[in-house]
Amino acid sequence: MSEPDMLKPNGDRLQSRVDHLATIVDAALPPFTRRAFSETHLAGRRWLADQFSQAGLTVSTDAGGNLIGRRESAAGAASAIAMGSHSDTVIGGGRFDGIAGVLTALEVAQTLGEGGKRLHHTLEVIDFLCEEPSDYGASCIGSRALAGNLSQEMLSQEDSRGETLREAILRTGGDPDQLGAGPLRGKGEIAAFLELHIEQGPVLEERAFPLGVVTGIVCIHRHRLIVTGQADHAGTTPMSMRRDALVGAAGIIGRVNALARERAERDGLVATVGRAAISPNMQNVVPAEVSLIVEARSLKPDRVEAFFAAVIRESKTELEREGLQLQAVCESEAAPAQCDPRVRGVIRAAAEARGHRFLEMQSGAGHDTMQMALHWPAGMIFVPSQNGRSHAAQEYTSPDALAIGAEVMLETVIQLDRTLSQG
Amino acid sequence: MSEPDMLKPNGDRLQSRVDHLATIVDAALPPFTRRAFSETHLAGRRWLADQFSQAGLTVSTDAGGNLIGRRESAAGAASAIAMGSHSDTVIGGGRFDGIAGVLTALEVAQTLGEGGKRLHHTLEVIDFLCEEPSDYGASCIGSRALAGNLSQEMLSQEDSRGETLREAILRTGGDPDQLGAGPLRGKGEIAAFLELHIEQGPVLEERAFPLGVVTGIVCIHRHRLIVTGQADHAGTTPMSMRRDALVGAAGIIGRVNALARERAERDGLVATVGRAAISPNMQNVVPAEVSLIVEARSLKPDRVEAFFAAVIRESKTELEREGLQLQAVCESEAAPAQCDPRVRGVIRAAAEARGHRFLEMQSGAGHDTMQMALHWPAGMIFVPSQNGRSHAAQEYTSPDALAIGAEVMLETVIQLDRTLSQG
Repeated sequence: MSEPDMLKPNGDRLQSRVDHLATIVDAALPPFTRRAFSETHLAGRRWLADQFSQAGLTVSTDAGGNLIGRRESAAGAASAIAMGSHSDTVIGGGRFDGIAGVLTALEVAQTLGEGGKRLHHTLEVIDFLCEEPSDYGASCIGSRALAGNLSQEMLSQEDSRGETLREAILRTGGDPDQLGAGPLRGKGEIAAFLELHIEQGPVLEERAFPLGVVTGIVCIHRHRLIVTGQADHAGTTPMSMRRDALVGAAGIIGRVNALARERAERDGLVATVGRAAISPNMQNVVPAEVSLIVEARSLKPDRVEAFFAAVIRESKTELEREGLQLQAVCESEAAPAQCDPRVRGVIRAAAEARGHRFLEMQSGAGHDTMQMALHWPAGMIFVPSQNGRSHAAQEYTSPDALAIGAEVMLETVIQLDRTLSQG
Repeated sequence: MSEPDMLKPNGDRLQSRVDHLATIVDAALPPFTRRAFSETHLAGRRWLADQFSQAGLTVSTDAGGNLIGRRESAAGAASAIAMGSHSDTVIGGGRFDGIAGVLTALEVAQTLGEGGKRLHHTLEVIDFLCEEPSDYGASCIGSRALAGNLSQEMLSQEDSRGETLREAILRTGGDPDQLGAGPLRGKGEIAAFLELHIEQGPVLEERAFPLGVVTGIVCIHRHRLIVTGQADHAGTTPMSMRRDALVGAAGIIGRVNALARERAERDGLVATVGRAAISPNMQNVVPAEVSLIVEARSLKPDRVEAFFAAVIRESKTELEREGLQLQAVCESEAAPAQCDPRVRGVIRAAAEARGHRFLEMQSGAGHDTMQMALHWPAGMIFVPSQNGRSHAAQEYTSPDALAIGAEVMLETVIQLDRTLSQG
């Protein structure tokens, strides 16, 4: 398989683009912030559009505000292999989350162009609009728009200054009037979608794999568990006469952790109590009420439901014994997304062809691929995150690791182009 | 003992004064608020001063801003039996905390005067300045001042508008320049101090005692326990690779409760985690740091110390197993106060003389008596709090219960006057 004239992406060029985009950040916010819809974000996209052009791609913005670089197939086929991710960051985000995927896609397209590789498919590089949680409430705004999954309600949401998401999309060059009537592209227009992303977790590094082939993106269910007891004077109320909501909540936190550990392996599950509110939260008052946000994720929603059922059942019994009440409210349920088995197979074959080991793994974080996988065959490649850090200035993936990801992405496109055109 | 001509306080007059003071409250704040130093508080004190005068007491304000009503002994003795409590409330406080003690003292003094009872001792009724936590930081300001325990540092503290405590005391008619040079009164000037107070807990009601004879006021030790783990993505970090500070903190909360229950009876101990701060407190991030305020109270400081030592030792072992760090910082230690054995004996005898059952109990809450007991023989009488509620609009003690308290206070003064003058 290993041919001497095998095309290879330019790792230095890729890295220099990562470095450059890391300079287009908001000086007033923690490094490396480039919030979607901000002047900085738009400046970053102007630079990206210029890079797309220099790489021989035709630049456009779709109705959802997605920045697209496109090279038509030599054969004039309408069907595209699309690649991409996002260039916006959270506040205090890093230099790789999303960015690595956009710039790798660009590098792959440019390498294929410079190598004179004639493909059966049109190629697209997409910088999705606003993947991170936005000030308008929604996240994955561009990929939702593309997949026809951005509701009128979401479009009407305002940020703190009173600008609607509709108006914000207009500012980015999108056309909100065209949104809400289904996907922006037909089934056949996108033959496959690929996203490279940093893992944002510690598994690849810990287990010394240079690559992850993503099986799917987990569902996320969040429940609010409210424990109600009674506020009492912390000095005058004997231990035996208390109904301490925080003691009850502590039991739930321990139980969530213990049950999740028991089920982690079998159910591919993680669960977290990340947020709690205590009332009245005074040092000399027995807590009257504690509200916990419990989140669980797995590729299998039924396992997540079974997990919550167990947590709530066991907690209720325990709390009632202590004179405490438990109220459980489902806050949100996001469905899982499965990566396409055929695309996954091609990614695995591409990694093998280029001599790189890989780990098949689920994605515990949400990505634009969640939206794309609703309509088009999609696959994801993970590259390692140093120390698992993400959404932080410490976010780091080495140039070598990024180059390996780009190489496998390139090979995946070449093989997909062949496989998919054979039907 | 039970003489037909035995003096009895006027329960209706006492109750009508409680009701009247409950009308002098800040309309802009939750009922029944009368914050120390506020215009409302000063208005309440003007009314009190007038009531003192009508009861035949000579009214003055001492250097610490304490409002004092005084009746010299027939014998011209300088030594006083003092009684009192405070008329200020917390925000959203009740009609009885502190107030019951001031008005009972007034009723006892008035009954003795009207009954023509000639005492060996001078009588004093004190409305201590600002017992509740103030905007200037300190609490028990008036009783601290009297006991020579109000530091220059406390006097220099400012409220949110930049007024110093020194200036605020001046507004109440006090003389801050005289403070800081020791107690305002000599050892011999106060023969005994008595405070009636609502229990602020559920024990008397639960055990059906009309009276509590206080053995002492517990010490209060507060430690800040900081658990440090690592912020990780709640979706991408496997359960086995987490260092979740909230899971560690939950273990501490459970341990504080379990150890306190074990030791409650033996050590007369209560312990509470009333306050917690979680960082970053986001639903999709594994908590990196949790800071808990752990408070323990008992009459025996060595038992409180042993309790904290056990909590910290056991927690440290447990946390280190989970890759978490524990830092423990002592935030504050308030010493216990013992009620005077002789005064306690007289209160018991007085209750028996008047045919009322009593429970000997410690006070889990702080009171002005803590300061007074530093220099003068002090005793406290508790009356029941309905449902144990306090620092709330629901705070309630029935007129009958209050009248019983006043009756025993009256008998205590009569017996103390006799006992103490016999040497």
